[in-house]
Amino acid sequence: MAKELTNKEENYSQWYNDLVVKADLAENSAVRGCMVIKPYGYAIWEKMQAALDKMFKDTGHVNAYFPLFIPKSFFSKEASHVEGFAKECAVVTHYRLRNAANGKGIEVDPDARLEEELIIRPTSETIIWNTYKNWIQSYRDLPLLINQWANVVRWEMRTRLFLRTAEFLWQEGHTAHATKEEAIEETRKMLNVYADFAENFLATPVIKGLKTENERFAGALDTYCIEALMQDGKALQAGTSHFLGQNFAKAFDVKFSNKEGKLDYVWATSWGVSTRLMGALVMAHSDNNGLVIPPKLAPYHVVIIPIYKSDEQFSQISEKANIIKKQLEAKGLSVKYDNRETHKPGWKFAEYELKGFPVRIAIGPRDVENNTVEIARRDTLEKQTVTIDGIDERIVKLLDEIQSNIYNKALKFREENTREANSWDEFRAIIDDKGGFISAHWDGTTETELKIKEETKATIRCIPIDNKEEPGKCIYSGNPSKQRVLFARSY
Amino acid sequence: MAKELTNKEENYSQWYNDLVVKADLAENSAVRGCMVIKPYGYAIWEKMQAALDKMFKDTGHVNAYFPLFIPKSFFSKEASHVEGFAKECAVVTHYRLRNAANGKGIEVDPDARLEEELIIRPTSETIIWNTYKNWIQSYRDLPLLINQWANVVRWEMRTRLFLRTAEFLWQEGHTAHATKEEAIEETRKMLNVYADFAENFLATPVIKGLKTENERFAGALDTYCIEALMQDGKALQAGTSHFLGQNFAKAFDVKFSNKEGKLDYVWATSWGVSTRLMGALVMAHSDNNGLVIPPKLAPYHVVIIPIYKSDEQFSQISEKANIIKKQLEAKGLSVKYDNRETHKPGWKFAEYELKGFPVRIAIGPRDVENNTVEIARRDTLEKQTVTIDGIDERIVKLLDEIQSNIYNKALKFREENTREANSWDEFRAIIDDKGGFISAHWDGTTETELKIKEETKATIRCIPIDNKEEPGKCIYSGNPSKQRVLFARSY
Repeated sequence: MAKELTNKEENYSQWYNDLVVKADLAENSAVRGCMVIKPYGYAIWEKMQAALDKMFKDTGHVNAYFPLFIPKSFFSKEASHVEGFAKECAVVTHYRLRNAANGKGIEVDPDARLEEELIIRPTSETIIWNTYKNWIQSYRDLPLLINQWANVVRWEMRTRLFLRTAEFLWQEGHTAHATKEEAIEETRKMLNVYADFAENFLATPVIKGLKTENERFAGALDTYCIEALMQDGKALQAGTSHFLGQNFAKAFDVKFSNKEGKLDYVWATSWGVSTRLMGALVMAHSDNNGLVIPPKLAPYHVVIIPIYKSDEQFSQISEKANIIKKQLEAKGLSVKYDNRETHKPGWKFAEYELKGFPVRIAIGPRDVENNTVEIARRDTLEKQTVTIDGIDERIVKLLDEIQSNIYNKALKFREENTREANSWDEFRAIIDDKGGFISAHWDGTTETELKIKEETKATIRCIPIDNKEEPGKCIYSGNPSKQRVLFARSY
Repeated sequence: MAKELTNKEENYSQWYNDLVVKADLAENSAVRGCMVIKPYGYAIWEKMQAALDKMFKDTGHVNAYFPLFIPKSFFSKEASHVEGFAKECAVVTHYRLRNAANGKGIEVDPDARLEEELIIRPTSETIIWNTYKNWIQSYRDLPLLINQWANVVRWEMRTRLFLRTAEFLWQEGHTAHATKEEAIEETRKMLNVYADFAENFLATPVIKGLKTENERFAGALDTYCIEALMQDGKALQAGTSHFLGQNFAKAFDVKFSNKEGKLDYVWATSWGVSTRLMGALVMAHSDNNGLVIPPKLAPYHVVIIPIYKSDEQFSQISEKANIIKKQLEAKGLSVKYDNRETHKPGWKFAEYELKGFPVRIAIGPRDVENNTVEIARRDTLEKQTVTIDGIDERIVKLLDEIQSNIYNKALKFREENTREANSWDEFRAIIDDKGGFISAHWDGTTETELKIKEETKATIRCIPIDNKEEPGKCIYSGNPSKQRVLFARSY
């Protein structure tokens, strides 16, 4: 292999870190907790952005840009928001540096202290609703359906590439509505957009649900989420959509006159996904050979590798390779012909497996004679020698197959790792021995939720949206329960 | 008119501000010096990004993302860079807030002081070259051709929407090369990409040139630029491309082993354009009715406005309008049918002129009878009644015509406002009475350059690339000069 990966079964966490770094997705930077997203990782993120951005626009949203800085006082305006967000933040206190008095380097100029400190946005509800105040007067100004692609900063103490970093990239939708019903509909609509993206692009099945009060976004009345299961049996929250009620409208005094001419506060939603999705992509599908990227998010769909001994062979193979490349590109595929003479075929095979190229085509001298190529698919590692005739349609079909196969594999894994627990002993045994999702009765109190978390590190991931009413007894307290909820340890 | 604009001839500066705000491009935010880019403005910026991003990728570049924060000490490593950039910056000193002692709001937690302050990037050479150190060992790792789309912050004291803001959006290319020649070639290549974009998308002719030593980027050996002329006779620097030599490689100790196995420092370039281009777009073409947007950057190419009295007329017109809309969309055009009943046609006409939609189609009852529509082009405000047959091809052709016409108009304006000055009196008279570009002899010293600036506010915009050798006498000092350079007052 080009670069040795830790074995997934031996040390999942190390395998993840190795893979992110060795597959050139990202690395830690010189700034504590901040990552560098490398070109290959960023190319995947660009694919995600393009797909999501189209979905947002198809559902009537437009993009805009709001300031990076938020005046400190804004955070105090919404009582629960400040508790959740204004604490672990990067704070700008000065706006100038000067040459150091000792002649070495530069230092902060004490005379350039800001009157009011500025917080680097951890999320933008406050600055955006302060702006919306001037944009909304009448029901005719509603709805506002605005999204922002931006960087945000939350000063996390323990960070992991993509999963939890001080700075990360995300999109945050912030919408304003005339009625409660419309805002709730929007919250659910965007949850469905996220689920659609997760399943059809990320090839990752997700559970749509509601967060408990304890896990709710600071300032929201309801937080919807999509939860995915990683290969180590831990859950990952892949996106959230919040119904904010009139909380931010009240905090920033945003009123509109309705059709009857009466003044009322505006209803709000916000929703976001982040570069965390890159972590989900890595952990949901990859294996001990490297990344497995769903074709719909792969920067390159196909790599072509020549296998030759003589210059003459190389030139014959290159001719074939370039014809195939053009055919595939005409079908809208992205193809790399790796004709570097500095690396051997075996090295290249390992390298593109590590990088998760969905399909590899190898061409040797005998293939030229027989008008064939060898096709290898990344998801199953199966190889097949096929005729070049109709190669383009075959590859298009194969990529679809890979996309479905990856999804189905993840779905099967989730199904096999979702279990019911009907007693505390059973719950503890499953969480310790098997992990995965546990569907169990809960009495609905934060107290019980926190005790379960304390004793097992498992949290309530969500109350699934399609949950059926099913009276029972809380596995922890024994008190009556109306329905099962979904527990797991999580990222 | 829907919204009154200041007259351009009366107060150009106020006209610009009015237009940016009233056409919904941007507005000032609650944070001093930071702007909110509104959805319509952002849609134009997205068009610019898409065009530029494609040009970067077509020339072999890839995108990546580097941290927002730069450790303070990084700035001291390149001597001239620190002078130019590390002074007026936003400085993060703390990473936590706490509930205020007096029980009101929140305050900075004095215990959460960073050991080393972090600067919000004003430009990313330092953090990127610190990263490149680990990416580059051998000539095989070169060239690195990387671009980043990001927000940056420079603590400007006097700000103007798009032209000079504390936070702005931009792209910054940072490339690494094995040889000086290759780095210089890259610097020039990207200058040409910018000029191509300015002329073919922004419809704005530009002068390509070299900055004088005094105007050079802090840390560069050579700064190339494109300079455009605005309608008030002031110049606007629309993009820069820097040959950085080995300065940053030396500052961050980035060496590579060349083909001969010898260690050498890496050669660098950087190049960027920003949301300032939005200011150029507004100022280069717009008029007293509002924006004039080049069709290639217009969020919508066409607006269709119905003119009717009865419901029956409205329904007949809508039928025609929707057919035309579909035909135009099939040609790849973006079309808005404004069928709102809350606004009158006259209001809509003014609104879309203000917003700079390149083409307006109006349909009234007589048009339905005659199978015609009225077409109005935004650039000349000319109207014409034409048959609906072949409307799609007609509009495509018209949009091309508008794109060229806007460019040619700007080119004519620049030609008429570029003058030679052969004496100091002549120079002063032109700069005060007429403005525009002045081509004049200069003795090559920073001293003279600064005195001319002090006395006239004119600066040397550039030494044009295609300058002919032409010995003469400096208009200010009378000392010998090898060539003319281009002066102007500027934004």
